[in-house]
Amino acid sequence: MPSGTLLYAQSGGVTAVINATASAVIQTARAHKVRVLAGRNGILGVLREELIDTSKEPAGVIRSLAHTPGGAFGSCRVKLKSLDQDRAKYERLLEVFRAHDVRWFLYNGGNDSADTALKVSQLAAEFDYPLTCVGVPKTVDNDLAVTDCCPGFGSVAKFTAVSVRECALDVAAMADTSTKVFVYEAMGRHAGWIAAAAGLAGNGEDAAPHLILFPERPYDEADFFAKVKATVERVGYCVVVASEGIQTADGKFVADAGGGEDSFGHTQLGGVASFLAGRVKDALGYKVHWALPDYLQRSARHLASKTDLDQAQAVGRKAVEFALKGMNSVMPVIVRTSDMPYRWKVEAAPLSQIANHEKKMPDDFIRADGYGITAPARRYLEPLIRGEAPPPYGRDGLPKYVSLKQTLVEKKLPPLAE
Amino acid sequence: MPSGTLLYAQSGGVTAVINATASAVIQTARAHKVRVLAGRNGILGVLREELIDTSKEPAGVIRSLAHTPGGAFGSCRVKLKSLDQDRAKYERLLEVFRAHDVRWFLYNGGNDSADTALKVSQLAAEFDYPLTCVGVPKTVDNDLAVTDCCPGFGSVAKFTAVSVRECALDVAAMADTSTKVFVYEAMGRHAGWIAAAAGLAGNGEDAAPHLILFPERPYDEADFFAKVKATVERVGYCVVVASEGIQTADGKFVADAGGGEDSFGHTQLGGVASFLAGRVKDALGYKVHWALPDYLQRSARHLASKTDLDQAQAVGRKAVEFALKGMNSVMPVIVRTSDMPYRWKVEAAPLSQIANHEKKMPDDFIRADGYGITAPARRYLEPLIRGEAPPPYGRDGLPKYVSLKQTLVEKKLPPLAE
Repeated sequence: MPSGTLLYAQSGGVTAVINATASAVIQTARAHKVRVLAGRNGILGVLREELIDTSKEPAGVIRSLAHTPGGAFGSCRVKLKSLDQDRAKYERLLEVFRAHDVRWFLYNGGNDSADTALKVSQLAAEFDYPLTCVGVPKTVDNDLAVTDCCPGFGSVAKFTAVSVRECALDVAAMADTSTKVFVYEAMGRHAGWIAAAAGLAGNGEDAAPHLILFPERPYDEADFFAKVKATVERVGYCVVVASEGIQTADGKFVADAGGGEDSFGHTQLGGVASFLAGRVKDALGYKVHWALPDYLQRSARHLASKTDLDQAQAVGRKAVEFALKGMNSVMPVIVRTSDMPYRWKVEAAPLSQIANHEKKMPDDFIRADGYGITAPARRYLEPLIRGEAPPPYGRDGLPKYVSLKQTLVEKKLPPLAE
Repeated sequence: MPSGTLLYAQSGGVTAVINATASAVIQTARAHKVRVLAGRNGILGVLREELIDTSKEPAGVIRSLAHTPGGAFGSCRVKLKSLDQDRAKYERLLEVFRAHDVRWFLYNGGNDSADTALKVSQLAAEFDYPLTCVGVPKTVDNDLAVTDCCPGFGSVAKFTAVSVRECALDVAAMADTSTKVFVYEAMGRHAGWIAAAAGLAGNGEDAAPHLILFPERPYDEADFFAKVKATVERVGYCVVVASEGIQTADGKFVADAGGGEDSFGHTQLGGVASFLAGRVKDALGYKVHWALPDYLQRSARHLASKTDLDQAQAVGRKAVEFALKGMNSVMPVIVRTSDMPYRWKVEAAPLSQIANHEKKMPDDFIRADGYGITAPARRYLEPLIRGEAPPPYGRDGLPKYVSLKQTLVEKKLPPLAE
């Protein structure tokens, strides 16, 4: 039985399967008889010495985390800056580690978190504090470098493809006398990964979604209107999927054009879908509808991808194994070894290759006309939404999601000066 | 084998299970060796003599309709007025019936459709044309009279309760440093049935959704702000479900306040959730997010309620049986015979008791403070979302939804002057 504590923390937006990773981390550590503490609300809980004693959570609850969305230990939007700029905070982390005998630090998140884990590891080395830091991949944005895909993305991709297919059937049934243009807003401020996944909902020129707007291509209103009109005239209706991050050629976010203040000085919250729908209505006169699924898309554990779930659990297990082997400053990443049949494995990659890098969508994933996805994109995306992994449901018709007791361990340090 | 044709048509918004009703209608008629034609895009297809020959659709496809959302035969938003005002159209319907030997007319829809079916029946009697008219209940709005609930409602209710529970877990995980107030917009222009169903997502003062805004209660901004603030201070975050139809005390729709025109004269599409979120942000300074699921909520066959599916199929079967027995101007309705255990059966009710009536939500379903549901509401709603009935999925990770050939029978009449 290894001596010392494993500390798990997660940061940034949560996903439908981040709890599945946490569940795998805790179960694997328990199998190795290693004590696990978890930062409450991510790195913030570590800084505040608010550490959840996971040994107080029953085995059944830890297992059930694998089918519970959200982030049961909490998360936060806090980014540590450079070692120089935020030195006090990094040193505080080491103090907390020392006070609780933390020998392994698992940090679950995206690019920023990989960077933080790397810096903590560097500082520990500088202070000769024996610590193994392992990053754990997670983000619906799918923008982490090195790994073939990011746990969390496959499930939002599946939700998007299924929802767009379902809505398209609805629109098709009513288009003769009702809505002709439907706009679905997908998450993705910087990259069109999630919007691209909507393309899996249909294949062929007349299949919905008819038009996908990517942040990787400048939004050209006149061209978009012409495409919408041509689609309605040809198909009878038009289903549009717009990435929240689309920009005009001069680099302005289209979403911001829809917001601002009304004549009373009230905040009008923006949104790409409502803006596009309004413009289409004005310019083309069609009846429009739009949807903004927002958090629904990243919390829809009821529609999780089995592939995504498997990968989320695998990186959790591997993160613990890498840590206990003393593999410092690495991240378990998904390596795709075959497209057909789809095969993958988990390997260790250096955090330095991941921290603060951003994976862009390959240029050849977007169709030449800019409004759809290509065969290579389908080949990449399709396996990620494969398989179903529904949660158990109760007699009341609702999924049996669990919550934690979140029992904190006793503090040993003076409070953090915030 | 009865001589003559059964004509099936559907009107108004589609649901996750309207195709399941159509599937049951066709299968039951086939078992009785009765030919079924279906109006393409509802009553409009009947007026235009665009009649789909359902015998051209393979049995496997008809069975698969039971797990396919949307409206495979199409629907429309066309309301026939009184017999006097729209006499030409009613007579045209009879001409089409006569030309295709239609002896049974099944009309699937809400209040308006029940009224149309009743009037068609009256006109047929006036002309001594032998016709049996049967209404078939369907509406996500759950506002049909007599029937205990409406096929389509249980599934949107389940989608709403599950989605709100999932989003609430997401918000809870991030609230410390991110979104504190989340607003979910539910369908329901006139009644708060769908918003009420969100109440099933949690129980108890601190469980999400914390505040439900019903169209049955005047929206009082100051009181709402105070409730939001108190909830955030007590719980850490606040999940709000707003019915799209909420109004201020002077009868103005809150949704309209969020719309209008921007300073360039562009249409700003309204929406209750974005408006409320903007106001909360201004007044209380919290970070806000909002979701507008729109068609997702009524097309989410992947999350259908088994109870709802069973009822949608049962009313389809019974409609055919009632028609073939010559029970004229009736509708198969759901009768609840017991709450615990939940038991129901299908009976015939006269269309005259249903046409143009609207079922309101009982006053005692809304909590005294106006922001939540009561125990009687839970007792009524909970059985309706019970049970899962997922569609089969393909190897590609998407539900195996089907579409129809929609082969039209040859026209026998001159075209309709539209």
